[in-house]
Amino acid sequence: MTYAPGRCARIRIVKQIFVIGIGAGDPDHLTLQAVRAIARTEVFFLLDKGEEKADLVRLREDILREHAAPSHRVVVARDPERDLRTSTPGYAPAVDDWRQRRAEVYERLIADEVRGDGTGAFLVWGDPALYDSTLGILDEVRARGRAAFERTVVPGVSSVSALAARHRIGLNQVGRAVQITTGRRLADGGWPDGVDDVVVMLDAHRTFGRFTGRGLHIYWGAYLGTPDEILLSGPLDDGLAERIAVVRAEARERKGWIMDTYLLRRGIPA
Amino acid sequence: MTYAPGRCARIRIVKQIFVIGIGAGDPDHLTLQAVRAIARTEVFFLLDKGEEKADLVRLREDILREHAAPSHRVVVARDPERDLRTSTPGYAPAVDDWRQRRAEVYERLIADEVRGDGTGAFLVWGDPALYDSTLGILDEVRARGRAAFERTVVPGVSSVSALAARHRIGLNQVGRAVQITTGRRLADGGWPDGVDDVVVMLDAHRTFGRFTGRGLHIYWGAYLGTPDEILLSGPLDDGLAERIAVVRAEARERKGWIMDTYLLRRGIPA
Ligand SMILES: C[S@@+](CC[C@H](N)C(=O)[O-])C[C@H]1O[C@@H](n2cnc3c(N)ncnc32)[C@H](O)[C@@H]1O
Ligand SMILES: C[S@@+](CC[C@H](N)C(=O)[O-])C[C@H]1O[C@@H](n2cnc3c(N)ncnc32)[C@H](O)[C@@H]1O
Repeated sequence: MTYAPGRCARIRIVKQIFVIGIGAGDPDHLTLQAVRAIARTEVFFLLDKGEEKADLVRLREDILREHAAPSHRVVVARDPERDLRTSTPGYAPAVDDWRQRRAEVYERLIADEVRGDGTGAFLVWGDPALYDSTLGILDEVRARGRAAFERTVVPGVSSVSALAARHRIGLNQVGRAVQITTGRRLADGGWPDGVDDVVVMLDAHRTFGRFTGRGLHIYWGAYLGTPDEILLSGPLDDGLAERIAVVRAEARERKGWIMDTYLLRRGIPA
Repeated sequence: MTYAPGRCARIRIVKQIFVIGIGAGDPDHLTLQAVRAIARTEVFFLLDKGEEKADLVRLREDILREHAAPSHRVVVARDPERDLRTSTPGYAPAVDDWRQRRAEVYERLIADEVRGDGTGAFLVWGDPALYDSTLGILDEVRARGRAAFERTVVPGVSSVSALAARHRIGLNQVGRAVQITTGRRLADGGWPDGVDDVVVMLDAHRTFGRFTGRGLHIYWGAYLGTPDEILLSGPLDDGLAERIAVVRAEARERKGWIMDTYLLRRGIPA
């Protein structure tokens, strides 16, 4: 049961939906707040994207086994796929339609699977605030107005924080800015003006390889926080870009998938 | 005792120094990794910056009382102040000198207060990777080469993640970049090219007030994660910039200090 904030004294009985950041790969990234939210949750929603890596599924299962209440339930739903046929010619309508279909799935989960004053939770990789769609979809569900619920977001250790910690570096240089971006944006837009530090996520194309010959440093990490973690760092020139590409390809081949993040830094004396 | 990584099989006995992110204000932001590192630590170093807020000192004390081993020690050292007299005309030399003096203090703490194979820790606000000097100073200490130690960095929930969680928003828009910067840089450099989302830290001058009339949204948070937390959000125009300035001034007056962070977002339809 939750008490509605606001001016009226009426007690509203609403569903409580947690969006819980579980950290980027190490089960010890969980915060105490996440542990408590998991322990209070009655039903966990797992969205099967059809491409889920066995290791990531296992991490979530381990977390639930260790921290969830014995009576918890897990509901697996199929995440609607983006309609690839229409997504190139008519990009915006396809995306809109896909968002609507996802919102419908989430709405149904909340409506059908959570009791009137019950608790449900979505477990989110890293920090829910970085390149994750869960919060946006829940906004959409609220906008549709058919499901009433309250949301509590539990922040988590992002892969960006994990990367910096494992390399024992700051993300920013003293008094300077840092930009967090995607591989595609960095490839399309080039090095952003006015920053010396760029963190790159969601990069399937080794975009760092386009930035050699400028005296940059790279701090690269794959499978951060997991037993397979790989760290490489140093001046990007003189072969490191190529070496990371090789290590990355080998790891991806070996495990069947890869998750990597890196920081490109300008201004470290050679 | 730790085993030195590397090729030789010799076991080195070295001091272990933890740099532990403790989250941005809520003791439940602590990760399980931080809890375990705190429990293993023999001596905690507190750097008295002469301006420490009683609430922040209390948060750290609460954390140690709850999670540290009963036998732990706390050593308080005076953080050398920046020499303000010389810092304007001769900025770089003053900063260098200040860094050297800080490195000396840290070096002495590690040399004098940690046993040969013991553990010491610095507790860092938020995430050690964002606008914090601890890692840089330890690099300096290592460069001086007089103290041998290993560092383990424990990532934490930053005030940026806390801000996003409390407003239940993502930091980036779908596929877009986000920049994290300081109030001063935003004031000096203007709105950065190519990003729609700018997170501002260390802003003593309400720099958001310079960005009205452009249709921006603001998500503002002060004392995040603490019982004094204040959240305000909405379109920056039509008075919200002024309202935040008033609320901020009142809160600062009441408590004697303030800590605030905000996200400026472009592209939300009115
Ligand atoms: C959809 S985003 C989700 C990010 C997540 N919300 C976070 O806070 O880290 C996925 C991207 O995050 C990065 N990532 C997530 N976990 C990672 C890990 N354990 N090691 C390296 N990169 C990781 C990769 O760049 C990957 O392409
Ligand atoms: C020296 S920086 C340290 C940042 C810290 N390492 C982190 O990860 O949040 C201090 C700045 O962080 C922000 N900050 C830290 N804690 C905060 C809190 N609880 N609420 C609002 N802002 C906070 C403010 O912008 C403040 O000026």
